[in-house]
Amino acid sequence: MKVRVEVMLKTSVLDPQGKAVEHALKMLGFANAVDVRVGKLIELDIAAPTVEAALAEARSMAEKLLVNPIIEDFRIHGV
Amino acid sequence: MKVRVEVMLKTSVLDPQGKAVEHALKMLGFANAVDVRVGKLIELDIAAPTVEAALAEARSMAEKLLVNPIIEDFRIHGV
Repeated sequence: MKVRVEVMLKTSVLDPQGKAVEHALKMLGFANAVDVRVGKLIELDIAAPTVEAALAEARSMAEKLLVNPIIEDFRIHGV
Repeated sequence: MKVRVEVMLKTSVLDPQGKAVEHALKMLGFANAVDVRVGKLIELDIAAPTVEAALAEARSMAEKLLVNPIIEDFRIHGV
């Protein structure tokens, strides 16, 4: 089953990459873009007997490897 | 309006970051994860009079700055 893990910095954490993108957008004339934040999108295929098992496995992967819970939040979706 | 731009490497392009994550997952015992690919998730707030205008502006930003169309595909969603 295809699963997507979306990882974003917590809103309380400064996002320098997002700030850089926002600045570049303004330089290109996109003055109306604000609050730009850049995260990670991890797509993977998990062989599991049920949807619930695949999502639980993805959550375990996120907690053990993909996400730094000190500074990042994550969401998991089936595709 | 909050907009999300999802950027992934085209499926025809090798994704070394995804391969590294897949290898790390296997080392941790997640043997059933395959086809891992890592992309970018850009969230931003666009001041525009309509939803259509905001999405069109986001598409323009993607084409001009956020995405390399040679190697990447993108999708845009309103939030």
